[in-house]
Amino acid sequence: MTVKIELPNNIKYDINIDELKQIKLNRKVVVVTNPTISALHLEYLLKHLEAKELSVVTIPDGEQYKNMQTIEMILDHCFENRLDRKSLLIAFGGGVIGDMTGFAASLYQRGIDFMQIPTTLLSQVDASVGGKTGVNNKFGKNLIGSFHQPIEVNIDPSFLKTLPKREFAAGVAEIIKMAVTFNKEFFVWLEENALDDEKNLATAIAKSVQTKAWVVSQDEKEQGIRAALNYGHTFGHVIENETNYNTFLHGEAVGIGMVMANAVAVEIGLMTQKEAQRVIELLKKYDIPTAYNIADAESFYAHFFLDKKSSDNKIKFILPKGIGDCVITDEIEKENVIKILKGFNH
Amino acid sequence: MTVKIELPNNIKYDINIDELKQIKLNRKVVVVTNPTISALHLEYLLKHLEAKELSVVTIPDGEQYKNMQTIEMILDHCFENRLDRKSLLIAFGGGVIGDMTGFAASLYQRGIDFMQIPTTLLSQVDASVGGKTGVNNKFGKNLIGSFHQPIEVNIDPSFLKTLPKREFAAGVAEIIKMAVTFNKEFFVWLEENALDDEKNLATAIAKSVQTKAWVVSQDEKEQGIRAALNYGHTFGHVIENETNYNTFLHGEAVGIGMVMANAVAVEIGLMTQKEAQRVIELLKKYDIPTAYNIADAESFYAHFFLDKKSSDNKIKFILPKGIGDCVITDEIEKENVIKILKGFNH
Repeated sequence: MTVKIELPNNIKYDINIDELKQIKLNRKVVVVTNPTISALHLEYLLKHLEAKELSVVTIPDGEQYKNMQTIEMILDHCFENRLDRKSLLIAFGGGVIGDMTGFAASLYQRGIDFMQIPTTLLSQVDASVGGKTGVNNKFGKNLIGSFHQPIEVNIDPSFLKTLPKREFAAGVAEIIKMAVTFNKEFFVWLEENALDDEKNLATAIAKSVQTKAWVVSQDEKEQGIRAALNYGHTFGHVIENETNYNTFLHGEAVGIGMVMANAVAVEIGLMTQKEAQRVIELLKKYDIPTAYNIADAESFYAHFFLDKKSSDNKIKFILPKGIGDCVITDEIEKENVIKILKGFNH
Repeated sequence: MTVKIELPNNIKYDINIDELKQIKLNRKVVVVTNPTISALHLEYLLKHLEAKELSVVTIPDGEQYKNMQTIEMILDHCFENRLDRKSLLIAFGGGVIGDMTGFAASLYQRGIDFMQIPTTLLSQVDASVGGKTGVNNKFGKNLIGSFHQPIEVNIDPSFLKTLPKREFAAGVAEIIKMAVTFNKEFFVWLEENALDDEKNLATAIAKSVQTKAWVVSQDEKEQGIRAALNYGHTFGHVIENETNYNTFLHGEAVGIGMVMANAVAVEIGLMTQKEAQRVIELLKKYDIPTAYNIADAESFYAHFFLDKKSSDNKIKFILPKGIGDCVITDEIEKENVIKILKGFNH
């Protein structure tokens, strides 16, 4: 199955959801991966790759290495292998690999092509679509980066067979996010179908990718509707930060963040208690955490302000409007949020 | 005088060539400058700036600090001052400041606005137009960077009164470059007029900016004609590299590089000896160096290959076709170039 992406400024590329086909590239290629993925799947990938020259750079595994030092490591490898402006980087791994490979590609000689071959569910449904690249720094997550679209995305669901259960569930959280904010029909489908079935899984990946592709095509640079993809993230980022990025996977934090956003939505009358409960049930079906203990609501609230999405000291919230629709607003009263944060104890 | 830039993808901005007007900005602003410019002109600038919040980050002066460490210094300042996505960076200085400020702006939260207020002739006529940003690394110059257009460029020729004579001449070299490659009429005007006259100087800046703006509007990402702006640079970069960036100013190296390119153009019949001589005379009129001692022609030639402009191991040369026109070619025989390099002793 192929999803065609068309962005403004004549950018077009395909997202192929299928078993990996033979990829022939008449250019210099560098594959960026990490030791975990390399051990599990690199041999399989290299069997499917033909290039003029090919090398692999293995970067350390983990969010804590998502920084400028690792970017320079990738770039140095590219310079040492004398990549030129027609060369190609391939991101082979999860979201961290994808974000960093895309970022390095956007910087190398002011921008070369890159291809995504995502190996985790989260990166297949989310990070591989949309062209956001970047790294973390001491001030927060993804605060340094660029917009750089891949030339092609190849999603092979068979990579997911080796994915740890928690990571799989974290990916499902992003799928649910997509359904809650944009696609009621998809949400109902998710309630009625199980993703342990291979065919259902491929369908869910395709539906998510299609939804995200549609959103990004409307608003590549996140000046409007694209911000809705951050549903659950405003809260999720604070949770990740408070727990030093070592307690929850990103998708898990987003799952909890969605439950928090829903509680605010219920509080101000955008969503019924029953609809919020349906989201919680769907999350629980995949063992995605929905509870978090907020030690200090005021401190949690203060954390919002270094988030990229807030400007002029206003916090931008993405709140569901029932199921399948949402609003982006920076006019939620602090009291409403604090009340929810104080009472949050699911 | 205002030059209007219109680029593909609906990017538009003005280049104002005039005494600095009052600039009112209803957003957070960070001015990026260096100690030299700060001492000479910061007070004057700040008198003309009104912003919601304003701070200044002073970075070390010199090409050797044009690296990722300095970029991180600028970014850290921005994070510490809690810039948001609506904030603005102002590049206040020469080309190094401009390239780095633009680069930092392109990276901060995946891209915020920046304004150019260039203070050297070189940056006024060249670096401030076109949106190329970047830094050097151990592999070469400007090898890491992005394309990021300013929202406005304010060129105040009065800053040039404090510019050292050599730096002024280096800027004139880029003006001559523009005339040789694209504008015969302008070249003749330069032969007939002197730039120590204030009015002539403003005219020459405007003509250069207009020419470059036209080129960039045709080809923002340098996939075609824009490469012609690198006339003199293929050779110039090697000269700078061989002399460890401490002997010639960039514009001076480009001046010598132009003379080398002309010699190749004469060798293959694109230019007459007389035309090449006219370019040399014009360069000499401003004491721009035209001579360089090549120790080893083969080693000089080998240096071309890490240049960004070469792909697939072909070297892209920009050679004048008479005066006022040029060709971009990667089909010059190595022997022709080596012959010129061996004989180069102007």
